[in-house]
Amino acid sequence: MEHTVSFLPDNITVRVSPGENLLTAAALAGVYIPASCGGDGVCRKCKIELVQGELHAQNTSSLSQGEISRGTRLACISTVFSDVTIRIPEIVRSDGTSLKAKPKTTRTISTRSQENLVGTWQIAPPVRKLYLTLPPPTLDDNIPDMQRLIRGISRTGPAMHEPDYDHPELIHDLSVTLRESDWRVTVILLQGKLANEPERIIAVEPGDTTDQLYGLALDLGTTTIGGVLIDLNSGRIIAEASAYNSQIGYGEDIISRIIYSQRTGGLRALQEKAVHTINNIIEEVCRTVIISPSDISYIMAAGNTVMAHLLLGINPKFIREAPYVPGVSQFPLTKAAALGIMAHPSVRLFLYPCIASFVGGDIVAGVHACNMHRSEKISLFIDIGTNGEIVVGNRDWMVCAACSAGPAFEGSGIKYGMRASSGAIENVHIHPDTLDPMIITIGNTNPRGICGSGVIAIVPELLEAGIIDRRGKFNDRKKHHRIRKGADGWEYVIAWAHDTMIGEDIVITEIDLDNLIRAKGAMFAGCQTLLESVGIGFAEVEQIILAGNFGAHIDLERAIAIGLLPDIDRDRFYYLGNASMLGCQISLTDHIRFRERTEVRRIMTNLELSDNLNFMNYYVAALFLPHTDSRLFPSLSY
Amino acid sequence: MEHTVSFLPDNITVRVSPGENLLTAAALAGVYIPASCGGDGVCRKCKIELVQGELHAQNTSSLSQGEISRGTRLACISTVFSDVTIRIPEIVRSDGTSLKAKPKTTRTISTRSQENLVGTWQIAPPVRKLYLTLPPPTLDDNIPDMQRLIRGISRTGPAMHEPDYDHPELIHDLSVTLRESDWRVTVILLQGKLANEPERIIAVEPGDTTDQLYGLALDLGTTTIGGVLIDLNSGRIIAEASAYNSQIGYGEDIISRIIYSQRTGGLRALQEKAVHTINNIIEEVCRTVIISPSDISYIMAAGNTVMAHLLLGINPKFIREAPYVPGVSQFPLTKAAALGIMAHPSVRLFLYPCIASFVGGDIVAGVHACNMHRSEKISLFIDIGTNGEIVVGNRDWMVCAACSAGPAFEGSGIKYGMRASSGAIENVHIHPDTLDPMIITIGNTNPRGICGSGVIAIVPELLEAGIIDRRGKFNDRKKHHRIRKGADGWEYVIAWAHDTMIGEDIVITEIDLDNLIRAKGAMFAGCQTLLESVGIGFAEVEQIILAGNFGAHIDLERAIAIGLLPDIDRDRFYYLGNASMLGCQISLTDHIRFRERTEVRRIMTNLELSDNLNFMNYYVAALFLPHTDSRLFPSLSY
Repeated sequence: MEHTVSFLPDNITVRVSPGENLLTAAALAGVYIPASCGGDGVCRKCKIELVQGELHAQNTSSLSQGEISRGTRLACISTVFSDVTIRIPEIVRSDGTSLKAKPKTTRTISTRSQENLVGTWQIAPPVRKLYLTLPPPTLDDNIPDMQRLIRGISRTGPAMHEPDYDHPELIHDLSVTLRESDWRVTVILLQGKLANEPERIIAVEPGDTTDQLYGLALDLGTTTIGGVLIDLNSGRIIAEASAYNSQIGYGEDIISRIIYSQRTGGLRALQEKAVHTINNIIEEVCRTVIISPSDISYIMAAGNTVMAHLLLGINPKFIREAPYVPGVSQFPLTKAAALGIMAHPSVRLFLYPCIASFVGGDIVAGVHACNMHRSEKISLFIDIGTNGEIVVGNRDWMVCAACSAGPAFEGSGIKYGMRASSGAIENVHIHPDTLDPMIITIGNTNPRGICGSGVIAIVPELLEAGIIDRRGKFNDRKKHHRIRKGADGWEYVIAWAHDTMIGEDIVITEIDLDNLIRAKGAMFAGCQTLLESVGIGFAEVEQIILAGNFGAHIDLERAIAIGLLPDIDRDRFYYLGNASMLGCQISLTDHIRFRERTEVRRIMTNLELSDNLNFMNYYVAALFLPHTDSRLFPSLSY
Repeated sequence: MEHTVSFLPDNITVRVSPGENLLTAAALAGVYIPASCGGDGVCRKCKIELVQGELHAQNTSSLSQGEISRGTRLACISTVFSDVTIRIPEIVRSDGTSLKAKPKTTRTISTRSQENLVGTWQIAPPVRKLYLTLPPPTLDDNIPDMQRLIRGISRTGPAMHEPDYDHPELIHDLSVTLRESDWRVTVILLQGKLANEPERIIAVEPGDTTDQLYGLALDLGTTTIGGVLIDLNSGRIIAEASAYNSQIGYGEDIISRIIYSQRTGGLRALQEKAVHTINNIIEEVCRTVIISPSDISYIMAAGNTVMAHLLLGINPKFIREAPYVPGVSQFPLTKAAALGIMAHPSVRLFLYPCIASFVGGDIVAGVHACNMHRSEKISLFIDIGTNGEIVVGNRDWMVCAACSAGPAFEGSGIKYGMRASSGAIENVHIHPDTLDPMIITIGNTNPRGICGSGVIAIVPELLEAGIIDRRGKFNDRKKHHRIRKGADGWEYVIAWAHDTMIGEDIVITEIDLDNLIRAKGAMFAGCQTLLESVGIGFAEVEQIILAGNFGAHIDLERAIAIGLLPDIDRDRFYYLGNASMLGCQISLTDHIRFRERTEVRRIMTNLELSDNLNFMNYYVAALFLPHTDSRLFPSLSY
């Protein structure tokens, strides 16, 4: 159910989910409300008038009784629970004429499309449980206990092969387990890599435990590691947790971690930190649903190439040195417990294979999740983070590349940049006349900094207001108290110190803009180079799939406006969310999809951009807003 | 080259190897020489006259110059290095008439036959080394290092499959190894279990090490663990070592070790002891040829079911409880280093599968070694130890059984019993008139006790001399100072205290004889029951293969005389030696034979004798020397 919010006097409407913040609804509608403190009702500037309907307010102490009875509300602390009509007070110039903000239509990508892309998957996981009642041995039938177990399994169905086992610990106490449970046990069987391989017995549990079958999906991010616990009998997610990757203490980014890994004991320390973080997540999800970590039968993980190397203790030294060679792309069969992960000793940790040093298992998992490898349509898969990873192709062929986008989209490389967490400015509108911003922060609190989507939002606003030019340089003829020369050169003040959580003015500098333009230029040039390498252009791309956390908050029009994304039919854009985690979840739940994951790796080829002349030329041409070649952005009014 | 030794006055000849001890040669010929101290020239009773040829003497101080010039020598310290003629002084009765010892023909089994049984095998081990010179990576060819290695291997030949690897440690430092060795490396590849499985990369070494490829065969005995190091390039044995199984501190036999394993920490202690002993052996063989334990690429081991369970840390509790069920028969893929064995972390320890609680991998290895599973001939394979294990069959079918022979053949269960080591009486002749023994000890030293073959030798001698009857009971009418009633009842003194190393009279008692008769009765009844179960008799058995250390010293005629072995054509008997070790050596060296080992297990069925009524009846009937049914022993003159 959605509610309609109508903004007067321009009668712009927007549909939002119940509970949506009114300031966010306005931003979505492209309606400007003066809001400079990000929320919490502190600055009291975002007053609006409730004309019709109901608004919930967290706190009304900032308003007088008179104001409340006149319908005055603070947009930043109001939430929508019915259809409402709102009047925005007009901003009035000193001479009495009104300063109307031009309504804009911005656009976030609908998530309707995710299901179309991902398709459905069956609840038929690669692991299964089987409850057996075995006949006790007699002198006439005294085959070894393991053989009795295997015979029992074989008799349950027309198996092509007897199940196998490769796990010495499994049999240490098998004899005792069988007798103590009176020959009634549950076996956990794991399917082979290929359809014609025998199943493997990975555990034997006393009694009937078939109603408990759990799998863990792990997204091994450089910054954050996420875990999703799935009930494999129902396919449902029953617990989720995430934690900062505690490797961060040894370096914020993968390059500094590679450097750390070359110290004595460094690689081991990094491995232990990753394991430690994973164990915390396992503890948390298990506590939530009151199971033991050893009840997890199967772990599916995806991470970038460096994370995978570090987790497995593989020396990543040469990943950062030309010609950028990883040690391994297909990771060997690994028992989670052998790495120190809290798991039953026979439980396997599957890691999505990687393609190259900077195109990792997270990308393979994402491509796998959205079925690019099974579709006839030519798709362009884009994951924007510190590195931008791009994949183009369909079920017959795939080419991928990584381009050093720089960290601008993840908040670093920007003076007041921060991760997309509470207090991050994620959206900005600048009033074209007053040049004052309307800011939306994550969590509707006072701002602490700017996250990637905030940076992408502010650039076209600065451009439209004439504060900067298309090279990202400040227009020094524009006089305004928010435009000034700071320690790092020209800057625009987004929030004044007294309205922030950090007690400093939050600004965006010319250097920040330069970093952003380089980053978006690299991404765009990467896409161009990759498409050219397979002889197609943007027109032939039938769908663009945006993956990664970043895509969640992206404003599609603005991303196109700055030249980060290509200017093609907006309906071809799809937002997939955490595609890496989604791939793990699908692999956990559907054994046919599970097997297909190696197919993705098989058909994907890496294109190295680092010494590619075309890429360099495209990159230089892209250092402009939106681009030096305006024919590439026909729909933009510039 | 052999020498002929002729004994006068009866002109009995025997052919012996150069360096053979003259006393042993006499015993082999069935010639009686009074020799009661076992050697060392102490008792000076074994004087003989050298008629022709040369004898070497270790020490002549026991004889006068006159004696030496007259040709007198002490048999116990003389060795044969040419054809010689020897005159045995006749023993003279008090009345002056001579007491001639009746010449006997005893017979050890020729070893000529081993080659016929075992056949030849090729030097084509399941592991191979391959030297590669890889192209260094470039920006155009920057596939992961492991993929480059696999591509390099694939390019060397028309492999059906790309090689695989399952060993995480292998890749930890692969990148560094490849670069430090300038992309010239040697890979060690292990063949799959089946012919159509991909090879597995088990190690990567810098430079060209193809001339060094070693395998270790391990015979995991309850008492002794033996190791044989093989150069897999030539197939030659280059070092051997053996050591007492240091589990002995926790129990002499497998039953007491199973009991110990049920204590807290007991199983782990037993496992550690086995590993400790194996490590000592590895250290010794490696020191001998100056290689590192990590240079061993492949370990093949065989042991009885309990030893295999203890080494792998599998609870053996139920092996000793009816219905005698082992935990496992086919052991899982095990990395030697995971058990604590000094080996390269990726080196596999293969264990021959076992059949039942008391028919272990040592028997499977022995059957595998002698090609029973490929022969049309019906063979009876017998391994006599604490337990007697019997296998009958051919390439189409096999049945096996274990019968509790009791420890009589291994020295325990006999008052002065001992293992077949230095000082053990291994052969005895008793003069039919004087009733004095001629004893041969291992190492030609003073005696310390009697080993299995000594016990088997003495029984027909006592019987022939009329000292005991066919029930094994002493004839109390026979008066002689060596026949007396001791603490344990009737006994015969084999060696007087002053001639022994232990300062006690070494005797054989009526209880010893009883134990021996039970043991041989169980073995014989086991063979009968097994043959009957497949509907054949001894006449249809085309070859009898004796395995185990015990068989090495067995006197075939005497073993038949007491009813331990069946009375069939002596040419059908073959002696295989340490068949378990031989099987391991063959599996190490020939990959086709290696794969066949599982075939042996597949066609072999265990017959449980413990509650078998036929067995009980046969057993009772066999408690007689040689048997209550004399038709079963037609060639014997009794």
